[in-house]
Amino acid sequence: MLILSAHFVLPIAGPPLEWGAVGVEGDRIVTVGLARHLLRDHPSAAHLDLRNAILLPGFVNAHAHLDYSKMRAVVPGLSLPNWIIELTRRKQACSEEYFLRSVRHGAAECLHAGITTVADCSDTALAAQALHETGLRGIAYPEVFGIDERDPLETSLARLAEKEERQRPWLSDRVRPGISPHAPYSVRAALFESLNTRALDEGLPLMIHLAEAREEVRMLLGENQWKSPIREGMVRYTPPMARPVPYLDGLGLLRPGVTFIHCVQVTHAEVTRLAESGAGIVTCPRSNAFLGVGIAPVRAMLDARMRLGLGTDGACSSGPLSMFEEMRAGWFIHRSVGATVTTRELVEMATLGGARALHREDEFGSLEPGKLADLCAVSLSDGVMSGCDDPFDALVMCGSAETVLFTMIGGKALWDPHGLFTGPCAAYSPQSSQPP
Amino acid sequence: MLILSAHFVLPIAGPPLEWGAVGVEGDRIVTVGLARHLLRDHPSAAHLDLRNAILLPGFVNAHAHLDYSKMRAVVPGLSLPNWIIELTRRKQACSEEYFLRSVRHGAAECLHAGITTVADCSDTALAAQALHETGLRGIAYPEVFGIDERDPLETSLARLAEKEERQRPWLSDRVRPGISPHAPYSVRAALFESLNTRALDEGLPLMIHLAEAREEVRMLLGENQWKSPIREGMVRYTPPMARPVPYLDGLGLLRPGVTFIHCVQVTHAEVTRLAESGAGIVTCPRSNAFLGVGIAPVRAMLDARMRLGLGTDGACSSGPLSMFEEMRAGWFIHRSVGATVTTRELVEMATLGGARALHREDEFGSLEPGKLADLCAVSLSDGVMSGCDDPFDALVMCGSAETVLFTMIGGKALWDPHGLFTGPCAAYSPQSSQPP
Repeated sequence: MLILSAHFVLPIAGPPLEWGAVGVEGDRIVTVGLARHLLRDHPSAAHLDLRNAILLPGFVNAHAHLDYSKMRAVVPGLSLPNWIIELTRRKQACSEEYFLRSVRHGAAECLHAGITTVADCSDTALAAQALHETGLRGIAYPEVFGIDERDPLETSLARLAEKEERQRPWLSDRVRPGISPHAPYSVRAALFESLNTRALDEGLPLMIHLAEAREEVRMLLGENQWKSPIREGMVRYTPPMARPVPYLDGLGLLRPGVTFIHCVQVTHAEVTRLAESGAGIVTCPRSNAFLGVGIAPVRAMLDARMRLGLGTDGACSSGPLSMFEEMRAGWFIHRSVGATVTTRELVEMATLGGARALHREDEFGSLEPGKLADLCAVSLSDGVMSGCDDPFDALVMCGSAETVLFTMIGGKALWDPHGLFTGPCAAYSPQSSQPP
Repeated sequence: MLILSAHFVLPIAGPPLEWGAVGVEGDRIVTVGLARHLLRDHPSAAHLDLRNAILLPGFVNAHAHLDYSKMRAVVPGLSLPNWIIELTRRKQACSEEYFLRSVRHGAAECLHAGITTVADCSDTALAAQALHETGLRGIAYPEVFGIDERDPLETSLARLAEKEERQRPWLSDRVRPGISPHAPYSVRAALFESLNTRALDEGLPLMIHLAEAREEVRMLLGENQWKSPIREGMVRYTPPMARPVPYLDGLGLLRPGVTFIHCVQVTHAEVTRLAESGAGIVTCPRSNAFLGVGIAPVRAMLDARMRLGLGTDGACSSGPLSMFEEMRAGWFIHRSVGATVTTRELVEMATLGGARALHREDEFGSLEPGKLADLCAVSLSDGVMSGCDDPFDALVMCGSAETVLFTMIGGKALWDPHGLFTGPCAAYSPQSSQPP
């Protein structure tokens, strides 16, 4: 067993422990408590004392698009519809080799920022390979598109099958598959229904962008003023004449196993309905601001006890792939409009909340005996943390990838820039890179 | 002469130069243009090619409190009045030695983040020493307090004189003095008038917190509901029965040479009046959010062509002392509420805007021949910048202190973590630390 101790241990599932410790054996957490108790009870364990640091569950980046890791902050200030046109234009100029470099860059950046799980929606279906290679835990959701009622359903399903084929060699117990029917404005009802049936049959998780921009709401209500292929008659589409949340509710998609991204354009009643449905929700504060879609009602979502996680979205609509950046922007944005989300709530959203949004909270997201040893540690000795006396405030207001001491996934320290895992701790360093 | 070239040179006073260059001689910028032109015209100059980087004026942190650099993010979520009580409680427990460590920590952090000028309001009057030692350009404004009409004016003025005495040995052409009458809620009219007269006589700049929280407006209008020593009768105070901006206008303070901090609680007419007065304004987006005072009308301020700078405020109400953090939070906050400030406007506010807010734009803030050689360079090769193709977007959305390649003040590279200023460039490294 390896005992990791630190000034602050944040189990998330319970209150912070001052001078706490976590015992790791194999790929699991076996014990969590005060350092002096763990050291007394396990005198022969290896011990790594992190001292002036915070030890917490690895961050769960509950929504990303690693595809776009090398297209950073694409034209800040555009509206979502115009931005999608610009992103699509840029994508078309990029080779598969470019996208492979991009997903690898993004996966490494996540690992270095203390992220241990990434839920990734991929148009290229290359993300699974990068997640496998980097050692990250992941869910790889190939994206499905198909709004035009004139196209046979089989066209969209065949494209999905190609993407699934491409990512299949990289799947394992660590990198698992899902499906991402993209959004109500890009996937028609029959396609949603077909994918939902398959997901239920095969136990596959779904990830869907929902209620992001006002234009989406107007399109579904048949009030489409958005300059689009639909308005121009290039696409045949019958609006469901319902708002996004009731629309997908009617299709049977509000259920456990489904994770919805964004949910900015939601009424109070819709928040309540989403919470009681057992579906997961992921909020992406930087992306919502970047694309000018407004501010998600995160305060109301927390009060409704949703399964609420936090995601960086693609670097194309956020910037650095860091949950510190996401928590910090979220804090400032919500506080600015008088809907304060506490630093503690943000750290929980960035860890256990993400696991709950992905319906995987039995496996990771908190420091509890029996859970996977997915951890990270953050230095409080870094100058930017100077004088912080609350670990949650320190992480949210001052943390950064540079303050990460190590990132451990399944008991292996896959990012160890300070060489902490040598000597008696060497057993916890990665020794070989196995194929899945 | 040393020619510094880079993929992007941002003169700020003019459009960006691709593959541009800046010629430095002694403490001054002597020429700015395309790299190929400068290299052709000055074949014997030393040359440092920064390649995939952005070369720009050093950042102007137009409002800081280095005193609190080691009290980071003190209790996020409190209202301003309650937060001041908490900050005061903590200050009273700290020694002078602690504050000296704190101002030194903050000054170093600024230098490392590409900041070349700091306008600092100090209750301890220790900041001037840290600014001198670090090599930063600075304005050191000792803070003046005195709201109680029963106290003789001389008490406040004597305390100011002590602070001025303390900082005097550290003043020079580089670190200049100012005075900071703290705010309309902590300084009474007679004291403002006395300090304004002295400032005009001696040509001293003033820095004043103005129109920050709603409580300040209510107090000045005699509608004080804020639990305070005034309401409790412990302080004698006659409200001017005017809003903050007209109140100080009536005292003759809206003029060049005076810099106002915050200006959140301002009407459209007050923005116009501030702009035409020639006074400088500094906005601190993180601090305003942190203290829950609302969002300053920065869009309107920019449209009114104010002398508008950006400041980190104290680390106690913001976090890391980095203009990257300040620009980024400002971008996300204003964009979230539909009052977009562009990345280019933010970079200008963080450089030339700050110089204009301090009425020092003839000396620094842009890359122009004759101006002081206060520069910084930011790497575009850092992973967090991956694929950024616009230099303003890169700085605001993805920049961080870690991406700073060097910070040069008055022609000396005082922060050079990559050892760029060796060999032919060695003349631009600091060789000795002289007393002022």
